[in-house]
Amino acid sequence: MNYKMIRFLLSRVLQITGLLMLLPLIVALIYKEYFCAEMFIILIAGCILVGSIGAYFKPHNIAIYAREGFVTTALTWILISMVGALPFVMTGVTESYVDAMFETISGLTTTGSTILSDVSMYYSVQFWRTFTHWIGGMGVLVFILAIMPMSGGYSMHLMRAESPGPSVGKIVPRVRDTAKILYLIYIGITITEIVLLLFTGMNLYESLTTTFATVGTGGFGISNAGINEFSTASQIIITIFMILCGINFSVYYYLITMRPKEALQNDEVKLYLLLMFSSATLIAFMIYDQGITNTPFESFHHSLFTVASVMTTTGFATLDFNTWPQLCKTLLATLMLLGACAGSTGGGFKLSRLWILLKAMKNELIYIVHPKSVKKVYMDSHPIDSTVVKSVSAYLSMYVVIFMFSILLISIDEFDYETNFTAVAATLNNIGPGLGMVGPTGNFGAYSDLSKFVLMFDMLAGRLELLPMLILFSPRTWSRR
Amino acid sequence: MNYKMIRFLLSRVLQITGLLMLLPLIVALIYKEYFCAEMFIILIAGCILVGSIGAYFKPHNIAIYAREGFVTTALTWILISMVGALPFVMTGVTESYVDAMFETISGLTTTGSTILSDVSMYYSVQFWRTFTHWIGGMGVLVFILAIMPMSGGYSMHLMRAESPGPSVGKIVPRVRDTAKILYLIYIGITITEIVLLLFTGMNLYESLTTTFATVGTGGFGISNAGINEFSTASQIIITIFMILCGINFSVYYYLITMRPKEALQNDEVKLYLLLMFSSATLIAFMIYDQGITNTPFESFHHSLFTVASVMTTTGFATLDFNTWPQLCKTLLATLMLLGACAGSTGGGFKLSRLWILLKAMKNELIYIVHPKSVKKVYMDSHPIDSTVVKSVSAYLSMYVVIFMFSILLISIDEFDYETNFTAVAATLNNIGPGLGMVGPTGNFGAYSDLSKFVLMFDMLAGRLELLPMLILFSPRTWSRR
Repeated sequence: MNYKMIRFLLSRVLQITGLLMLLPLIVALIYKEYFCAEMFIILIAGCILVGSIGAYFKPHNIAIYAREGFVTTALTWILISMVGALPFVMTGVTESYVDAMFETISGLTTTGSTILSDVSMYYSVQFWRTFTHWIGGMGVLVFILAIMPMSGGYSMHLMRAESPGPSVGKIVPRVRDTAKILYLIYIGITITEIVLLLFTGMNLYESLTTTFATVGTGGFGISNAGINEFSTASQIIITIFMILCGINFSVYYYLITMRPKEALQNDEVKLYLLLMFSSATLIAFMIYDQGITNTPFESFHHSLFTVASVMTTTGFATLDFNTWPQLCKTLLATLMLLGACAGSTGGGFKLSRLWILLKAMKNELIYIVHPKSVKKVYMDSHPIDSTVVKSVSAYLSMYVVIFMFSILLISIDEFDYETNFTAVAATLNNIGPGLGMVGPTGNFGAYSDLSKFVLMFDMLAGRLELLPMLILFSPRTWSRR
Repeated sequence: MNYKMIRFLLSRVLQITGLLMLLPLIVALIYKEYFCAEMFIILIAGCILVGSIGAYFKPHNIAIYAREGFVTTALTWILISMVGALPFVMTGVTESYVDAMFETISGLTTTGSTILSDVSMYYSVQFWRTFTHWIGGMGVLVFILAIMPMSGGYSMHLMRAESPGPSVGKIVPRVRDTAKILYLIYIGITITEIVLLLFTGMNLYESLTTTFATVGTGGFGISNAGINEFSTASQIIITIFMILCGINFSVYYYLITMRPKEALQNDEVKLYLLLMFSSATLIAFMIYDQGITNTPFESFHHSLFTVASVMTTTGFATLDFNTWPQLCKTLLATLMLLGACAGSTGGGFKLSRLWILLKAMKNELIYIVHPKSVKKVYMDSHPIDSTVVKSVSAYLSMYVVIFMFSILLISIDEFDYETNFTAVAATLNNIGPGLGMVGPTGNFGAYSDLSKFVLMFDMLAGRLELLPMLILFSPRTWSRR
């Protein structure tokens, strides 16, 4: 294990965290929250100082292998969460540091679960809270890769450990360029949404915070009323950007570089849009039929908003879908677990994994009937390597095992099964609210610290696609050989 | 597709079904239920007549390949269910034929879910109801293989399609001998339990029906009071036999033939017993601590009974564990899904699959960190073929997909999520009761016919380990090539 290089990278992460806090500092100054401004200045200074000391000696051996890549990724996210939690404790938003950690991890992992029953707080702290969605949406290491020159092919191991999806698609040969392109697209989408939301009547603060929660597919709301206080026009913009941010970002790269053929070849995106619009249509029909909405337009508007929010695991809501027909609710719960596309900011199991598993399943059925025919799994018209199929299958097993263990551990708190089951589902898939006590009108505050740690692990495991967290806590990782 | 051979085998199945109905006929005569006796005589005559006509012309080409094996297995179970349902409709136990089918499939698949709110009925019909557990426990085709001479290696495909577990272990080289040995062990265990239960004060009828439900790990009770009306001694015997019937039957063969080394080498059985006794001890401690039981003996008795009932998916209950601490309930729900050993009469996912998935998961984690080390999955000190690992992974995918689709389909009935989720879990794992409306005090009667068909599919899919049902309904199976 190259400890020096891990130390070096984590120090860089700390520096970046300090720089990122400049934004809430500006907000604090604008809103004349001088206490907060002072706090952010201290935090920024601390981060940059400690980070600069740690990054002062650049290691001679900069080799990063798979193991270091995963460990660094896991530690990076834990480090930012620990630092990012400080503003919440220092301003008294949360009672304990554990609660603040929970809130920060929920933000960074774009989960959107909260331990707060009342989300009113300083403007600058609220800004920081939603800004964590934006930071976590594309990933911190991708950002570091984009701005930091790294020689050798080592950076791939970092990219691979942080990117969502079964296999990493480098858009261009150099990792650094890929990271840059991804961030430029992300920033482009962000600015577009901010501007459009301003046109629909939001003020700059509302527009910024809502955009962060949308493009990061996080779902933290800045007021207890949630998304309903905004106009229908704003809601439509939000719908569109939720859908856009659930799509694999490589598609945008192909579109920008005038390669529509490659963009259209993406099977996962086709599946995503097909599921999205067919589910929305079905649900629109049902809620209209039940008299929940009054006009066909209204039905489709709320239904598409909900489906987009659920599939991208954002967690915004315009209507309380708990009152909708059971078939709608079950469909929404299923879409929630499946999630969005790989390489997007959305969470969940990811549709590409579903695609690979379904194809592998079909091949297995054919193989049983015709043992001589051995078929490959195809995606985007290319055969998929059997090791990818194997690791997707292993992913499903890990997912189920983590799910079961988490439910067992948090059931010590004696809450009901519905609450526990959906609390784990909501955190492991980075969805946000669950049902029962952790439903849209409840929060995660009542859980014990042990359970909160389990759910924090689940949020990080979900965002980082299981492996980094499992490898971090696997004893074999730390063995000498 | 060798249709003639399928016709021939199904005719044999019909003949066997007729012969099996001789037992309830005897019960009807003993209890002087002449109406029932008449009914059983007609059914037996019908089965044997139609079966004999169908089996009269033995096909020249007796080749059975994988496809035919799976299709025949699925059709066999559907055929017996259709015929076995008749006594329930004809005596007015159920209102509709669909309900009778549900009850019969629940019996044959050793699920134990019921659509009846009151299980009192004619002695002979009740006998038939519990006898379906015994028939389904070891499997009908295994029985046919045991008594019918079949040349060639074709019979393996039937055995493979009906046996529970990821890979078929032929105990002895010839399939027919294996089938015979399995049935002899099964009959031996059955007779032992019947005799022991007689000693604990049950009458012959109670002893027979309870034994059928125990050794088949089915769980139909013959009275509304359930297992509580029997003595503690009886309950202990039942506990022991539930545990015994959840073990891979090959272990008994090794023990009988004086090969304890092979018997002790079975990793799955070790895991099964370890999980069983550690869970029972933990739960005993918790319910004693909560004052639910009064003495340590009583705590361990009820706890082991419950754990054994749950792990083998029998579904008997001495206490209402709905009132137990949440951790106990969650642990029991987890054990329910995992199930018992392959090659036993128990249901669920099977521990050998869990073992293989956990080992494959561990290897995947090692592979990611050390890409050069490719390891094999070991079980019982032997390396497992990678195609088995692949098919176990595919099994998990199929399981999850069937689970999700079933919940979606039955949610049309507008029952709550807990009811729907546990209804599917209980049928697909052949457990019996679920929670909510289908809980231990409820039943499946309120579901629509569509939902009942979905749940019947799930019960058959669960008992036959998914593949036969999926292959039966796959269009490709019926294509000409």
